[in-house]
Amino acid sequence: VLKAEDQSALLGILGNEGLLCVGDYLAAYETAARYGAGIAAAVARPSDTSQVSAVVQYCVSKGLPFIPQSGNTGLVLGSTPDNSGAQIVLSLDRLRSPPQIDVANRSVTVAAGTRLSELNGCLEPHDLFLPIDLSADPMLGGMVATNTGGARFIKYGDMRRHVLGLEVVLPDRQGTTLALSRGLRKDNSHLDLRHLFIGSCGALGIITSAILEVHPRPQQTAAALVIPSADSTVMEILRKFETDAGDTLTAFEGISESAMRRTFAHIPSLRNPFGPAIPPYALLIELASSTRHRPGERSLEDFLQMLVMEMADRPEPLVTDAIFGDPAPFWALRHALSEGLRASGRIVGLDLSFHRNDVMRFRRVAIERLNEAFPDYEVCDFGHIADGGVHFNLVTRSNQPEDTTSSATRLRDYVLTLAVDEFGGSFSGEHGVGRSNQAAYDKFTPPSIQHYAGAISSLFSTAPAAAVRFGPRPLIGESNDQ
Amino acid sequence: VLKAEDQSALLGILGNEGLLCVGDYLAAYETAARYGAGIAAAVARPSDTSQVSAVVQYCVSKGLPFIPQSGNTGLVLGSTPDNSGAQIVLSLDRLRSPPQIDVANRSVTVAAGTRLSELNGCLEPHDLFLPIDLSADPMLGGMVATNTGGARFIKYGDMRRHVLGLEVVLPDRQGTTLALSRGLRKDNSHLDLRHLFIGSCGALGIITSAILEVHPRPQQTAAALVIPSADSTVMEILRKFETDAGDTLTAFEGISESAMRRTFAHIPSLRNPFGPAIPPYALLIELASSTRHRPGERSLEDFLQMLVMEMADRPEPLVTDAIFGDPAPFWALRHALSEGLRASGRIVGLDLSFHRNDVMRFRRVAIERLNEAFPDYEVCDFGHIADGGVHFNLVTRSNQPEDTTSSATRLRDYVLTLAVDEFGGSFSGEHGVGRSNQAAYDKFTPPSIQHYAGAISSLFSTAPAAAVRFGPRPLIGESNDQ
Repeated sequence: VLKAEDQSALLGILGNEGLLCVGDYLAAYETAARYGAGIAAAVARPSDTSQVSAVVQYCVSKGLPFIPQSGNTGLVLGSTPDNSGAQIVLSLDRLRSPPQIDVANRSVTVAAGTRLSELNGCLEPHDLFLPIDLSADPMLGGMVATNTGGARFIKYGDMRRHVLGLEVVLPDRQGTTLALSRGLRKDNSHLDLRHLFIGSCGALGIITSAILEVHPRPQQTAAALVIPSADSTVMEILRKFETDAGDTLTAFEGISESAMRRTFAHIPSLRNPFGPAIPPYALLIELASSTRHRPGERSLEDFLQMLVMEMADRPEPLVTDAIFGDPAPFWALRHALSEGLRASGRIVGLDLSFHRNDVMRFRRVAIERLNEAFPDYEVCDFGHIADGGVHFNLVTRSNQPEDTTSSATRLRDYVLTLAVDEFGGSFSGEHGVGRSNQAAYDKFTPPSIQHYAGAISSLFSTAPAAAVRFGPRPLIGESNDQ
Repeated sequence: VLKAEDQSALLGILGNEGLLCVGDYLAAYETAARYGAGIAAAVARPSDTSQVSAVVQYCVSKGLPFIPQSGNTGLVLGSTPDNSGAQIVLSLDRLRSPPQIDVANRSVTVAAGTRLSELNGCLEPHDLFLPIDLSADPMLGGMVATNTGGARFIKYGDMRRHVLGLEVVLPDRQGTTLALSRGLRKDNSHLDLRHLFIGSCGALGIITSAILEVHPRPQQTAAALVIPSADSTVMEILRKFETDAGDTLTAFEGISESAMRRTFAHIPSLRNPFGPAIPPYALLIELASSTRHRPGERSLEDFLQMLVMEMADRPEPLVTDAIFGDPAPFWALRHALSEGLRASGRIVGLDLSFHRNDVMRFRRVAIERLNEAFPDYEVCDFGHIADGGVHFNLVTRSNQPEDTTSSATRLRDYVLTLAVDEFGGSFSGEHGVGRSNQAAYDKFTPPSIQHYAGAISSLFSTAPAAAVRFGPRPLIGESNDQ
């Protein structure tokens, strides 16, 4: 709980509606979207950048630990307070001045507390959108802080690619506010500090607003659920799509039988297009074009169908079956997977990333070894095959309680070691570094990188040096949803 | 000239073929591609990363200034030694192990001394390419160090977008070699130091190799020279292309009458498609598609023609004329402009960048004011309208010698002040910070950015603190061509 003196000082900065100290109001800020919860000393809700700066100044000068939070949709405890009860949540949810759209520059200035859905709602009348697709509806500040990727990465890239400018408040005694870049697309006139803050998970500073490049909305979309004839054909199918469909390819997602089976069983509203014979692996493939379909031209749907048929009609087919049609139900399945798995058992959720030609190989090896070593768990993976990302979820086969803490920790370490040390992968492809990934960060990040990352942190912060390293700090940010 | 002791130590590291000390051999390394020259103490040409590290170690420990250089095609004296004769050129031109292409991962590992044309030659049999287009043929190390953009930026982005991994040698006593990222597309597991070195112009470290994402080659291309009915319609034409042609739009370049007139006059091999009536402004517009043209479909060329015709057939036409046909001669004109202008007079060459809706407005204002204030110079600009970049060249109307040094300096400062202070633009959109841009860096870069950039430099370098700031240092890198 906050001392009376600190409470009145923060009230002086923020006003009554800007500071929450009572239990009931804190709960939403203390509970992570999917895993875990903590205890906040209070929630500070500044309404503009100067209030953010004033709160930071006060907290730094008094040595009060704080943790920035925007949508709190992250999965790695990056924006949720710990259990000490000492941390102040610095929520950005009132930084919500309306998006300022610059149609000619094809860009938009957004405040950190703006939801992705809200931004895209504002952009729609201009036929523009921010093409980051994910299951959650995070706020833009957290999306920049964690460099959100998502399911259409292969076409549109991550948040980094869209950030033309940033406003950042540093965790120093002055609450220094930096304006980094000015919305220009080309600017090689200085060291581009902007990119340090993108993906820094809140450890280097608090993102209060951003200038984002936005894109014309697709005018045509087509999708299919494609069943590869074997694991080993998946990369060949991808290559054929990249060669023949070029950059109309907007998604190439893989989904395991186990993930589909559990999701269909636990989310009854979802239509199962396969019936009882769920295939061992399915690909959700989407094409999109930003040009309109014109009379006399082949539709994108016909084009997709033709490409898939070419792969099926071979002496050694790459594809054994496919379902075409409205993309919406395919994406509904894709976006329901996390929820479905969670309902089906206890999850150890890992967000791995590989050279993309290693994904299917890793899967094979890992499943084989895990069936031996951790028979209580089933691998229920799905992921972004085209960019090498895989949400490698391990879910208990039964829902019976057991002493999972230690087995889950061992399992987690076992898989991460395999992924990083044997396959050269990453222990966090998209989700960022939060409390959940701290042990992995300490174990797998090369000491030289830890050294320089820590040194850079210290440059921007006047917190005591001991507290300053990239990773577990009072000041850490939010991570994005998968 | 190198002391005998240093010469023999460097010979010990590099062998005979790795160290050039004699005038004749130095010339190519002392002379910049287009503007300026200097005097080198020697040229060190390491043949692998460990030799780079050993040379750096030696130079740092002895306090010998050195300047990294790869293709030396830059335009801002970023890789050319100064006139002191004290600087050792650290050339990367022997770091040339053949590109290692990973077709499944759609990536390639390249050594810093590889030429862009050479890389693309190796990629062509796989129907892949690195889609950075520029007039020069730089080496990949310098392209990463200066974050090269170029003429197809609007579609493919800059070098930053393609770098999946980097190897860097730091200018410290150990010649520390860092491997940053490992070729993964998604990796949010640590502070992404890679992006600090991209575009750092050699000031933070020497890039010895990179893992780059490469792209499917376009299967169809169409281009036109389009004459807008007025300056004010240019942005509307761009918007229409972005809406209707979507991401098939690969280039949207503007060229002034003065730039074309001088180029046609001085490069006789170039065909002038306009005859004597060169229009006041022309747009080079290119569409490309990575899908093959299939029978029965409209060709990209027809599509381009249709879009342009729609813009011409209006009550108030956006376009008054257009030339369609083989893209090659259009690009030949575009890429000959720099050379043509150089042949036509003395140049003050500026590489500006704006919010893209400010480009045409800046042009109008600047031309008006410059005709008053600097009547000896003619504005001969061309640029990347779609990304806000403009090569704002000022060329003397006559070729007569005069005391240009001071007037050129005044002119430069006049235009940069207008661009940066009044229009919020950048004084170096693509070319980076080299000796030529040092005064601009000092004047226009906000002190807070200079402060943090300098502090970050010091982290990676053990050169004396006084010598360490972003910008003019013994250790600065190469900049790319326009």
